Amino acid sequence: MESELSNNKQLLLKNYAKGLPNESDFVVKTSTIKLEIPEGCDDAVLVKNIHLSCDPYLSLFMKGGHFSFIPGSVRLQPIVGYGVSKVIDSTHPSFNKGDIVWGITIWEEYSLIKSPRSFYKIQDTDVPLSYYTGILGMPGMTAYAGFYEICSPKEGETVFISAAAGAVGQIVGQFAKLMGCYVVGSAGSKDKVDLLKNKLGFDDAFNYKEEHDLNSALKRYFPNGIDIYFENVGGKMLDAVLLNMRLNGRISVCGMISQYNNDNVEGVKNLFCLATKQICMKGFANSFYYHLYPKYLEMVLPLIREGKITYIEDIAEGLENGPSALGELFAGHNIGKKIVTVSS
Amino acid sequence: MESELSNNKQLLLKNYAKGLPNESDFVVKTSTIKLEIPEGCDDAVLVKNIHLSCDPYLSLFMKGGHFSFIPGSVRLQPIVGYGVSKVIDSTHPSFNKGDIVWGITIWEEYSLIKSPRSFYKIQDTDVPLSYYTGILGMPGMTAYAGFYEICSPKEGETVFISAAAGAVGQIVGQFAKLMGCYVVGSAGSKDKVDLLKNKLGFDDAFNYKEEHDLNSALKRYFPNGIDIYFENVGGKMLDAVLLNMRLNGRISVCGMISQYNNDNVEGVKNLFCLATKQICMKGFANSFYYHLYPKYLEMVLPLIREGKITYIEDIAEGLENGPSALGELFAGHNIGKKIVTVSS
Repeated sequence: MESELSNNKQLLLKNYAKGLPNESDFVVKTSTIKLEIPEGCDDAVLVKNIHLSCDPYLSLFMKGGHFSFIPGSVRLQPIVGYGVSKVIDSTHPSFNKGDIVWGITIWEEYSLIKSPRSFYKIQDTDVPLSYYTGILGMPGMTAYAGFYEICSPKEGETVFISAAAGAVGQIVGQFAKLMGCYVVGSAGSKDKVDLLKNKLGFDDAFNYKEEHDLNSALKRYFPNGIDIYFENVGGKMLDAVLLNMRLNGRISVCGMISQYNNDNVEGVKNLFCLATKQICMKGFANSFYYHLYPKYLEMVLPLIREGKITYIEDIAEGLENGPSALGELFAGHNIGKKIVTVSS
Repeated sequence: MESELSNNKQLLLKNYAKGLPNESDFVVKTSTIKLEIPEGCDDAVLVKNIHLSCDPYLSLFMKGGHFSFIPGSVRLQPIVGYGVSKVIDSTHPSFNKGDIVWGITIWEEYSLIKSPRSFYKIQDTDVPLSYYTGILGMPGMTAYAGFYEICSPKEGETVFISAAAGAVGQIVGQFAKLMGCYVVGSAGSKDKVDLLKNKLGFDDAFNYKEEHDLNSALKRYFPNGIDIYFENVGGKMLDAVLLNMRLNGRISVCGMISQYNNDNVEGVKNLFCLATKQICMKGFANSFYYHLYPKYLEMVLPLIREGKITYIEDIAEGLENGPSALGELFAGHNIGKKIVTVSS
């Protein structure tokens, strides 16, 4: 018996000229999908998407170009990205109907994933499932690998985090505080700065948009210099940080969001500081660290359950609010991890 | 009995406006010096300078500014820099009259060094003494630390070296060849390129001044990308290299000579490649690695004696030729390690 066709709302990217995409560059359309895996399609899963993750890196694939290091989104097709989903049909030996998974899915209600290599089966469901788009998913692993593996932090060190109220930055800051570091974050609005100081336990925070001289701002917060910089933004901020790094400092290059869709990328001029101060600047992709995921969960789940770590989310309900959610993210107006909840 | 005053030729830096100093910015004058250590001056040595080392970093101290990481030269005073010298008087327990030493001395015939902390007593004199300004001195330690300690090279890897015919680059290239790497160098003249290919055993070399597109040039020599970049120049070259680095590449930041006295420093735009390709870019100062100096000598002295490594020098005779020697160095016209020999 043939199964019925079901409606399937999708979020598509329209053609857009340049810069970062905004709300009007996205459109929600309805197509149809059969709610069972087609004959002969082995090792596939059919999922109902629950939460979709709004991540800054998505803009890289929307723009195209030479940053395509994972299968990217293509214009006029549904966006590809991280999400939390429920398996409703499976021909894959590792997944069964009813499993809750997180990994790379598609921005639509139902998705047929033919090669679900990025999927993790979620075992711990006593914490919010949406956390698997954030602290328990890719941003969490990014914070963990980028801070502990790349920066080798030590108690008492000074740590600076840019885009500190974002999905990754807020986790790094709390890890650094738990380790006994002095932690300052920068963000782009008063609300975000308040959040960092009052809810996330940062020692201090500032609004970079209100500082006309970032070098002086950093000197104010770090009179003795910065040991560790968790780099999320690039450009002018990195230049100012380089002048304020201490001897044997470490810079973990997680992202450079200020440069992603900037048609005039800002050149960084103070790189010679790397030599004079013996700084190690290392980039990383979280995808190389997933062998540490079980170890990470073992560390972070108890911290969440005991309330020793907080995770701030900014949730939009319904795929029809996807365009405004993504527009908000790229404009930096979200506070905390931006998520679109597709179904409950 | 009071000792006689002796004439003491000195090389001084005149005031100069900006950019790199040239020959006319230096002047040789004659002062006088007593050839014995003054009463009450403990822990001092009086040396007769033999060879003086022309190093690109000297321009940093001539310019002043925030790069002063070792005691620097001051305008209108004799230049301070590395050299090979003979001890003619000593009140320091570690040095005796007649010892040959290398370390930081002054650009003059005789120097009273009150705190000779940087001096190493030369034990092996069967090799040219001038080598202690180069392969057996600071540039050698720089090559050794920067290549082995920072880059962790492996057999079969691809290595690119900028300013490859310079004091440090020529050593790094030969170390890399001895390790079984594929090695390409860039330099600024046909003569230097010939030297790299025909005398120093590089697999290939090119004149960066003849390439209007450095990215294409690097793609030609490294169709599969670069594992290790030994960075001596900065600016545009670094930007092109970043595009051509391989996954898990290493960049050792030794110097950025193109940027030292450039009043409009070129911004580096492709740093996001650090994240997408998991590149580690680490600066270093040779001064942190001198605990490895005995180990280094043990490795390199046999290679020199057996002719397995070559060191190209470009020697000017007499302090009166110091101004033209330094002018040549800063203009990049020297071929190999530039040295001024003061006395034999």
